[in-house]
Amino acid sequence: MRTLNVGMIGGGFMGKAHSLAYAGMPMFFWPAPAIPFRKTVVDIRDDLAQEAAARYGFESYASDWRKVVEDPSIDIIDIVTPNNTHAEIAIAAAKAGKHIISEKPLARTTEEAKQMLDAVTAAGVKHMVAFNYRRTPAVALAKKYIEEGAIGRVLNFRGTYLQDWSADPNSPLSWRFRKDIAGSGTLGDIGTHVIDFARYLVGEITEVMGTAQTWIKERPVSSGPVDKLGTVKASGDVKKGAVDVDDEISTLLRFENGAVGSIEATRNAWGRNNFLTFEIHGEKGSIAFNYERRDELQVCFADDPDDRRGFRTIYTGPAHPNGSALWPIPALGIGYGETKIIEAHDFISAIVNDTDVSPNFHDGYRIHVISDAIMASAKSGTWVKTVE
Amino acid sequence: MRTLNVGMIGGGFMGKAHSLAYAGMPMFFWPAPAIPFRKTVVDIRDDLAQEAAARYGFESYASDWRKVVEDPSIDIIDIVTPNNTHAEIAIAAAKAGKHIISEKPLARTTEEAKQMLDAVTAAGVKHMVAFNYRRTPAVALAKKYIEEGAIGRVLNFRGTYLQDWSADPNSPLSWRFRKDIAGSGTLGDIGTHVIDFARYLVGEITEVMGTAQTWIKERPVSSGPVDKLGTVKASGDVKKGAVDVDDEISTLLRFENGAVGSIEATRNAWGRNNFLTFEIHGEKGSIAFNYERRDELQVCFADDPDDRRGFRTIYTGPAHPNGSALWPIPALGIGYGETKIIEAHDFISAIVNDTDVSPNFHDGYRIHVISDAIMASAKSGTWVKTVE
Amino acid sequence: MRTLNVGMIGGGFMGKAHSLAYAGMPMFFWPAPAIPFRKTVVDIRDDLAQEAAARYGFESYASDWRKVVEDPSIDIIDIVTPNNTHAEIAIAAAKAGKHIISEKPLARTTEEAKQMLDAVTAAGVKHMVAFNYRRTPAVALAKKYIEEGAIGRVLNFRGTYLQDWSADPNSPLSWRFRKDIAGSGTLGDIGTHVIDFARYLVGEITEVMGTAQTWIKERPVSSGPVDKLGTVKASGDVKKGAVDVDDEISTLLRFENGAVGSIEATRNAWGRNNFLTFEIHGEKGSIAFNYERRDELQVCFADDPDDRRGFRTIYTGPAHPNGSALWPIPALGIGYGETKIIEAHDFISAIVNDTDVSPNFHDGYRIHVISDAIMASAKSGTWVKTVE
Amino acid sequence: MRTLNVGMIGGGFMGKAHSLAYAGMPMFFWPAPAIPFRKTVVDIRDDLAQEAAARYGFESYASDWRKVVEDPSIDIIDIVTPNNTHAEIAIAAAKAGKHIISEKPLARTTEEAKQMLDAVTAAGVKHMVAFNYRRTPAVALAKKYIEEGAIGRVLNFRGTYLQDWSADPNSPLSWRFRKDIAGSGTLGDIGTHVIDFARYLVGEITEVMGTAQTWIKERPVSSGPVDKLGTVKASGDVKKGAVDVDDEISTLLRFENGAVGSIEATRNAWGRNNFLTFEIHGEKGSIAFNYERRDELQVCFADDPDDRRGFRTIYTGPAHPNGSALWPIPALGIGYGETKIIEAHDFISAIVNDTDVSPNFHDGYRIHVISDAIMASAKSGTWVKTVE
Repeated sequence: MRTLNVGMIGGGFMGKAHSLAYAGMPMFFWPAPAIPFRKTVVDIRDDLAQEAAARYGFESYASDWRKVVEDPSIDIIDIVTPNNTHAEIAIAAAKAGKHIISEKPLARTTEEAKQMLDAVTAAGVKHMVAFNYRRTPAVALAKKYIEEGAIGRVLNFRGTYLQDWSADPNSPLSWRFRKDIAGSGTLGDIGTHVIDFARYLVGEITEVMGTAQTWIKERPVSSGPVDKLGTVKASGDVKKGAVDVDDEISTLLRFENGAVGSIEATRNAWGRNNFLTFEIHGEKGSIAFNYERRDELQVCFADDPDDRRGFRTIYTGPAHPNGSALWPIPALGIGYGETKIIEAHDFISAIVNDTDVSPNFHDGYRIHVISDAIMASAKSGTWVKTVE
Repeated sequence: MRTLNVGMIGGGFMGKAHSLAYAGMPMFFWPAPAIPFRKTVVDIRDDLAQEAAARYGFESYASDWRKVVEDPSIDIIDIVTPNNTHAEIAIAAAKAGKHIISEKPLARTTEEAKQMLDAVTAAGVKHMVAFNYRRTPAVALAKKYIEEGAIGRVLNFRGTYLQDWSADPNSPLSWRFRKDIAGSGTLGDIGTHVIDFARYLVGEITEVMGTAQTWIKERPVSSGPVDKLGTVKASGDVKKGAVDVDDEISTLLRFENGAVGSIEATRNAWGRNNFLTFEIHGEKGSIAFNYERRDELQVCFADDPDDRRGFRTIYTGPAHPNGSALWPIPALGIGYGETKIIEAHDFISAIVNDTDVSPNFHDGYRIHVISDAIMASAKSGTWVKTVE
Repeated sequence: MRTLNVGMIGGGFMGKAHSLAYAGMPMFFWPAPAIPFRKTVVDIRDDLAQEAAARYGFESYASDWRKVVEDPSIDIIDIVTPNNTHAEIAIAAAKAGKHIISEKPLARTTEEAKQMLDAVTAAGVKHMVAFNYRRTPAVALAKKYIEEGAIGRVLNFRGTYLQDWSADPNSPLSWRFRKDIAGSGTLGDIGTHVIDFARYLVGEITEVMGTAQTWIKERPVSSGPVDKLGTVKASGDVKKGAVDVDDEISTLLRFENGAVGSIEATRNAWGRNNFLTFEIHGEKGSIAFNYERRDELQVCFADDPDDRRGFRTIYTGPAHPNGSALWPIPALGIGYGETKIIEAHDFISAIVNDTDVSPNFHDGYRIHVISDAIMASAKSGTWVKTVE
Repeated sequence: MRTLNVGMIGGGFMGKAHSLAYAGMPMFFWPAPAIPFRKTVVDIRDDLAQEAAARYGFESYASDWRKVVEDPSIDIIDIVTPNNTHAEIAIAAAKAGKHIISEKPLARTTEEAKQMLDAVTAAGVKHMVAFNYRRTPAVALAKKYIEEGAIGRVLNFRGTYLQDWSADPNSPLSWRFRKDIAGSGTLGDIGTHVIDFARYLVGEITEVMGTAQTWIKERPVSSGPVDKLGTVKASGDVKKGAVDVDDEISTLLRFENGAVGSIEATRNAWGRNNFLTFEIHGEKGSIAFNYERRDELQVCFADDPDDRRGFRTIYTGPAHPNGSALWPIPALGIGYGETKIIEAHDFISAIVNDTDVSPNFHDGYRIHVISDAIMASAKSGTWVKTVE
């Protein structure tokens, strides 16, 4: 069985998730398309990188990502660093002929995303952007139902992504609140997952109307090392810095195929943790999903008899997408790890079989175009087209 | 105890609900502010009116509403007819010095609504528009929490009203699909309930951005008598007529107090029956409500300790608004009837105590202004102000 | 249309519910089988009875129930008094040839219940015991599915009735905690509703194995008038009295048809309000119900394809039992009132059409036999048969 | 950092879960107590063992478990084989001085379990039985609340484990339906998880009253290799074999501390997938859990004010048990894998720190004693004590 050597750039929370995916993928998908070997992990200091190697099961470590990108034994570059570094790493990796998987959003700006897309296209390498939530089995099942025509023509898509980890004004000014590093705020961080759902399940978005809010305009500047998700509370800090990104966006959508929609994303919704939801109305039925209860998909079929019609709660399992690879009983439990294991499988399959995989850098670029349009619309107060 | 004589114009489904309210109000609210006596009911034909009197417990009946409006023994005119008749009846009743409760929406057009408001103002009578859902105890509890500051400053309001009774293209072209009678479609029929929630719970709406869809552009013209809700399926009909109102609206909102929001209303959402919901995010907490599970209110308080914070499911009962009047145990069961009983109580209290009641014709008029703005925005694609 | 004169004995919370039912029944069921006329209401003092008449819409009042029972103009005696008075009133009413509806449980003891059953049987009058919850449309729908064979042979019934209104040890020693008045505690008060569900939906119970607990062994003796449900908190009371009934029961069941089951009932479950539930497993499907969300029935059909099988959430409405009489849209809202309106309809229909109605005094008696067996089993620790 | 070499006996679904746990443990818990090294995996044939090694990331493989048990480089023996082999392997491993983790139930019979317990006790090795569900963060949170006294003295425990994978009479006669291999049916397979919950959360069980049913008395004997969970449908089989174990059990419980309880377990509940639930009522609050929605714990505190009391839905995350090791945001997603990762961590910590861990072979043995008592009670129809 073929082995593919992985060089992972970044050692934070996402490094954990991706490492688990590489370790677990062949356990779930067997025979595996190839065995991903955790070859080298990179962090910004040698000691941190050494620790990451021990923790995440990599053979070696480095503090200079360029060396890993240029290492001829490396097949895959996995980018799990903050957004401001994605473009430089990905472009270098593409030039070095590596297959690339990057965390989302693809970049800070549409321009960066375009350069990344051009680079991988020119290099002919495989590329993926890690919008992993669409790989939740229940989301894949929604896609399958829609493709089978089970709910007829899609009329309406409503998506939300609500969290509350930044609702506290005392949570520190991490990089996720800084435009120079993150590019945008809630929109790029979590809103893009909903855009990915919308494009995956319904089709291309052609026009948007948006609003954006920054509810908490300044936050404490932590003097210590900043947590990756900014959830560590500042203690004794008095200095505050300005937040220059959005806390919340709300937008109306029009799709190429005539459907309409809306998206709301916020990190200021007390009590909502990872409330990534969609509800889709079609001519022949409806589908609803809430990632907080991700083993379940709700579906209603218009063709059911009047006295037996209602939303069915389907627990995904062996009868559903990737069912034979996952757990043998529904609700045994899909966690975050499983979404990443499926993602790793699909990316490595694409490499081995020389096929396209989605969402790729083109999708990541399109999501940037749409995000830009949302922010432009929020400024102009008018609908903004996202296609020429 | 004082008695107030009611003349009810209309004998359909809403007549049933209002009659139950008059009968039940003193049973629940005791001592009652006054006893509403079901004096005269009006329907379009004498035989129908006679039947309505027997069924709904009225002392007498009539087929000419003008006679009832002019009857000096009548204290209250209750309008439960289709929308195209509200204005004429209400204006006449105001001139005759009657207190008036009208079903919603107040009229077909803003102009009609303004004339009605002017008439009741000039006459100095009490007036109410029957947006009953805000009288659900859980909704009143949400209002109480907000007024107590329990969730802090409101940032965001999201409301939906999703139904599916017109999702079937074979459901007939009832008056609810005709602009000349209904004034508008889903927006007026059910979207206005959400606008009422928004104004009640958050405050005045100052600007809107809307879209509107008519998914099913023609429907069978039933040859027989049309059911009030249009749910009776046409059989053997081939003739179809055009639908000239909206099936679905989606809108973004801005409030006077700086909050933002969104509303979606549709009658084409398979599996959603009476899915009237809101979710409100505040600086110190969140509130969520779904009328389909109307005994419950979800509330999250930011001040709870980190390891014990989460949405609480509050079942309304004796400890909550109108608790002593309703059932002695939470979840014994609030139905549609109870919302109407509370509505009747509050209207009659206002008459007896000579106080204002809300929502009144001013609220009804404002909802028309906002609805007009939504439809104007849907045409223009720009934000439309709803205040000067 | 025929009129039936009602004499209602008792003016508390249940009097309210029954009065609403009489007023509302013809509004919902039209043409009505007969019009129930609220003729005379009885309370223990003249002034209370006078107030009850005004409040509940009765033509006259009395403080001596015997006079009403003997009044030849009265057709129906409605017993809504505490349990210790049911037998005496019912037996007298039967002798006077009145049709009788009694609140539940039928009596304090099986012996009393048997005497009541014998009396109505001898008199040939119609009789009903007000286990109203089985008239919830969703429960009636469960019955319909089972009768249609939609879930195959029933294997297992699990029922619960959980409340928390007596979980507070400071709630006073109302009549519901006194064996001499109530006969039993939680078992009679609410457990009997679950026994009624079990017999209604599955069939006769032949054997039981039970446990019973009294968690709070003494309670404050309120000096003031005791609330019917005992929810009024004692203030400044120091005197306590012994509780001589059960707070909680748990039991295993065997049914005549081979099914098995269990019932748990308690009034000491913090956070459960009116958590009256059942879950039924059949060879071809399952059904689940929770009265706290009483507009809904959950049903799973084994025959659904593997990838589309799951519990369906059915919102009851026009397509379901009594649908044409109730509200025109599902989830418009079934409350406690509606269950009582249907109950009144079915009782009056039985009188007019001279048919049997269920649950009747025989059912009420059987429930006493089963309750006795549960308490006997709780003492003996062995299974106890409930049929000869 | 210390490394512990693992020899895993068995290569089925549970082998996958345990392998993922060893790979993922240090990624989550860092610094790890020790690194578990996947040294040797055993399956019944060399080719299967070789495949398991490649799939699950083991360094070597073997088809004779005795060699691995005797291999001096092995520190831990992990038993993931069918129940009939646990005792022999564990006793040999104990004699060889290995630390042992065994899948559940511990054995086929209490006698076997006792021998295993005696062997590990005599050997002084660490031992654990893999009732992993108690390691779900929400279950650990329930334990924490109870220990903190947040719900006061526990009065009542109700547990269920409902599945439907064997509800179809055509699912084949796998080893799980054979007493000679499995020891018992549903009780041992899944009911024991609930017994583990009961003992973990409430305390020792002293007396039981049980019933047991075998609904499907014979099943097709599959001619091909039998799936571990028996979910593969037989095709073309006509031969049937007898099921000699229970499909379903239902039991009442008494605890040492005065609490009471009940357990129901079945694999014949259509629509229930992994419906492992408990509800606990205490003097000061209640807790409810459903593994199908395992990120959530429901808790109600009596001390909340009357108008703000209700079940809180707590999504477990960084503020809760093992929060810093798991995902950085609640509802990012706990799956089956995470429960196994925590289990591996706790077992390895116990080895490194020379402490006890629970559930261990003593717990496993006690669960056998209780299970035997349940089956004995089901036969005798009387309460059976589980302690001397």
